Amino acid sequence: MSTPDTINLGIFGGGTVGGGIVEILTQKSSYFRQLTGKTIRVRKVCVRDASKPRDFTLPEGCSIVTSYDDILDDDDIDIAVEVMGGTTDAKDVVFTALSKGKSVVTANKALIAKDLPEIEKLLTTLDTDDTQFRYEAAVCGGIPIIRSMQSDFVGDDIKLMSGIINGCTNFMLTAMDRDKKSYDEALDQASKLGYAEADPTLDVGGFDARSKLKILMRLAYGMDVEEDEISCRGITELTKMDFEYAKMLGGTIKLLGVAEKNDDGHVSAFVSPCYVTNDDPLSSVNGATNAIEVVSKNLVSSIYIGQGAGRYPTANSCINDIVALAKGDKTKLPFNPKSDTKFANNYSSVFFLRLNYRDQVGITRQVGEICEKHDVSIHSILQNPVQKSQDSAFAIVTEKVEYAAILQVLADIEALSWCKGKPFYMPVLREDWQT
Amino acid sequence: MSTPDTINLGIFGGGTVGGGIVEILTQKSSYFRQLTGKTIRVRKVCVRDASKPRDFTLPEGCSIVTSYDDILDDDDIDIAVEVMGGTTDAKDVVFTALSKGKSVVTANKALIAKDLPEIEKLLTTLDTDDTQFRYEAAVCGGIPIIRSMQSDFVGDDIKLMSGIINGCTNFMLTAMDRDKKSYDEALDQASKLGYAEADPTLDVGGFDARSKLKILMRLAYGMDVEEDEISCRGITELTKMDFEYAKMLGGTIKLLGVAEKNDDGHVSAFVSPCYVTNDDPLSSVNGATNAIEVVSKNLVSSIYIGQGAGRYPTANSCINDIVALAKGDKTKLPFNPKSDTKFANNYSSVFFLRLNYRDQVGITRQVGEICEKHDVSIHSILQNPVQKSQDSAFAIVTEKVEYAAILQVLADIEALSWCKGKPFYMPVLREDWQT
Ligand SMILES: NC(=O)c1ccc[n+]([C@@H]2O[C@H](COP(=O)([O-])OP(=O)(O)OC[C@H]3O[C@@H](n4cnc5c(N)ncnc54)[C@H](OP(=O)(O)O)[C@@H]3O)[C@@H](O)[C@H]2O)c1
Ligand SMILES: NC(=O)c1ccc[n+]([C@@H]2O[C@H](COP(=O)([O-])OP(=O)(O)OC[C@H]3O[C@@H](n4cnc5c(N)ncnc54)[C@H](OP(=O)(O)O)[C@@H]3O)[C@@H](O)[C@H]2O)c1
Repeated sequence: MSTPDTINLGIFGGGTVGGGIVEILTQKSSYFRQLTGKTIRVRKVCVRDASKPRDFTLPEGCSIVTSYDDILDDDDIDIAVEVMGGTTDAKDVVFTALSKGKSVVTANKALIAKDLPEIEKLLTTLDTDDTQFRYEAAVCGGIPIIRSMQSDFVGDDIKLMSGIINGCTNFMLTAMDRDKKSYDEALDQASKLGYAEADPTLDVGGFDARSKLKILMRLAYGMDVEEDEISCRGITELTKMDFEYAKMLGGTIKLLGVAEKNDDGHVSAFVSPCYVTNDDPLSSVNGATNAIEVVSKNLVSSIYIGQGAGRYPTANSCINDIVALAKGDKTKLPFNPKSDTKFANNYSSVFFLRLNYRDQVGITRQVGEICEKHDVSIHSILQNPVQKSQDSAFAIVTEKVEYAAILQVLADIEALSWCKGKPFYMPVLREDWQT
Repeated sequence: MSTPDTINLGIFGGGTVGGGIVEILTQKSSYFRQLTGKTIRVRKVCVRDASKPRDFTLPEGCSIVTSYDDILDDDDIDIAVEVMGGTTDAKDVVFTALSKGKSVVTANKALIAKDLPEIEKLLTTLDTDDTQFRYEAAVCGGIPIIRSMQSDFVGDDIKLMSGIINGCTNFMLTAMDRDKKSYDEALDQASKLGYAEADPTLDVGGFDARSKLKILMRLAYGMDVEEDEISCRGITELTKMDFEYAKMLGGTIKLLGVAEKNDDGHVSAFVSPCYVTNDDPLSSVNGATNAIEVVSKNLVSSIYIGQGAGRYPTANSCINDIVALAKGDKTKLPFNPKSDTKFANNYSSVFFLRLNYRDQVGITRQVGEICEKHDVSIHSILQNPVQKSQDSAFAIVTEKVEYAAILQVLADIEALSWCKGKPFYMPVLREDWQT
């Protein structure tokens, strides 16, 4: 029974994350009692298949159930923890739990990316702040970026966020750059280690990163953007040569999600491979690790590096939410009031371009003319020293120019007879960047 | 007048940090009202010299005062913000404010390092949790490490903390390594930029870092260590040659504060220059920036990089505390209950040793014998290629050995006739480190 000294939990999902939550709650129960003044008890764990063996010990007084209503209709349950995944049943479960006055903790990125505005709308109609909604684990697993956005930046103005927010692709880029693996080998290894989504297109195409970026933009700027408005390029076009050029320039390549508030108040955003210099801490974030840099008015630059997924990092974030609720912590929602910040599908940056070509006279002149026509200044032209004649390529680093202009330059170049395949481009993040 | 809809502030100090706090509160007042449901008003700012011109605009209804009691005796003031510094008057002010039921927010590292246990004892006797005490800004300015320790690691077990927690020395090391400045030039520049304490010995001797490490150990392990029990070495013994060797080995040198829980449950700690490899994100933390890595059971590795000082980063942390209090956030104190964790003045590590010598036959043999005697295995011996005969030196990288054994090896070597000056040593942090 629920008493003032007890918080009763019902957990939807007894898999990777759910099992981790139960384990930590068991191990730390007396400490949590000391910290919150309450006993946190797991009463029910809802799964698909009750007969499946579990890799965690069920706490005393806790039962395995298979019907959502066993938790939803149980008035003794104060907090519903949704760690089963999906966006259909999970959505029903979350909405019903909240409507019935239960607080909800979830790790479900897909659900948050799709339905956060609707969930927040529901919360504002509830007319009580006893029913709370938390989703720390939904973005970047173990990195406490949600809480940080909600508490460390309240007095600050966020100018830019830029992050390595997909573990699978960062693992692959590390393997390709540092360990000289091919794309296929890298993807294969990432899948074997459980870093890839069931459909790896979500990772390598940049779409998973885009879902997280959208959530971060909601938190930082109070804006709801449609995901497909955000320009999204994954890592599939990268070649060995791009890594070689990056190395020549003193840096490496990372798949970043970037959102930036321009001086005119518009926010632009994209997911793209980016050139990162070696003296940027993001350049040393390797393997499946995630990282987010926030550039802001007061704090200047803050970087958080940590595990983006995995049983204990993700469960740890759920636990932080659960303990905060047990302590009586309340967040007024929507955290960042809906703002009239406009989304602009354009941004300025230094760009790296790589062009594959069939040898011919006048290439440099033609590229020069096209750049001039679109007002794109060239900072430097690089020729890869290690080069086979069948894949001749050169790279251009531009000055800071508009993304739209780069697209025009590339379209014009692609139409030329010597141009082989699609030219590749990526932003170079730092303005203070020097060859 | 204090009403349920208003939080009244009295600020002790109207200097760098105090002015920043007033500015942010003014700019964000309507947002904070929305977020907390309360109007946060600065009613009094206490300074030494009321006639001194201020670089911030006094909010309406706020007066400059010069007597502590103007704030302490004012029952309308809910929160006292102590940003005047020092440990005598500041201590009185904090204790009196708390005793009178005012919550306190402070940025005073010196006070926290000295008196946190006493303050927490006072708080437990108050028998109310309406009176809260916050000090986010006291450790690493803009990095929210205190709140992170108090909320992100509640379900976790911290194994190791290692941090660049003194901005002045990190600025100097960057200048010496990357910009090839001499020690004196680097210190001079750090002082001019306001990064050095009034007495720079506190920075370059490692003592400031040690004060912060002590506070972090209190938070991570619930233990109160006397500062001078923690082995403390600054950056004064470093030579150009050490940077050259570090570069040869593929890394750099950082002054780190490190605390580690050993397998037997003892915690060891030290402040020392450390060799850090280039693929460690801490190696790219340059200038006056701070960084803290926390290695823990659930989150594996979490790194926070940010500004350790400065008007707005520090004021931002005070603002986070003030807004949290306005929202009714409560922390049970002492956060981490006093534990019986024992302090051990010993630790194991790979070490880098640098020995300056007068040329003579048999040096390698003698060093080998001494290392063998004290059970120190040698991983590699390095000879600096760029070498003038008057400062011949070589470096040794050991296997993982006990700190105590290294001290014995160094004592024995120092006694030999060919040894010039004090041998230098530093820990090599990563176990997976390879030449
Ligand atoms: N794993 C990570 O590293 C990670 C990181 C961040 C976020 N997340 C998010 O956390 C959530 C859970 O991930 P997971 O890795 O723990 O998944 P998982 O290991 O596959 O576990 C899912 C659990 O939910 C149960 N379940 C699934 N569908 C159900 C249904 N329709 N009715 C009842 N029970 C159902 C399953 O029951 P059975 O055991 O009976 O099949 C299983 O116990 C997902 O939203 C995921 O995106 C995971
Ligand atoms: N600055 C940073 O980057 C930073 C970073 C982290 C922590 N902190 C901490 O924040 C605190 C304040 O630092 P700060 O840089 O703001 O110092 P500051 O610029 O020197 O300002 C100190 C203020 O306190 C007032 N004050 C000092 N002693 C006083 C006394 N006995 N009675 C009344 N007023 C007194 C001064 O009054 P007058 O103006 O009339 O002289 C001044 O307004 C210190 O504890 C410091 O360690 C600072």
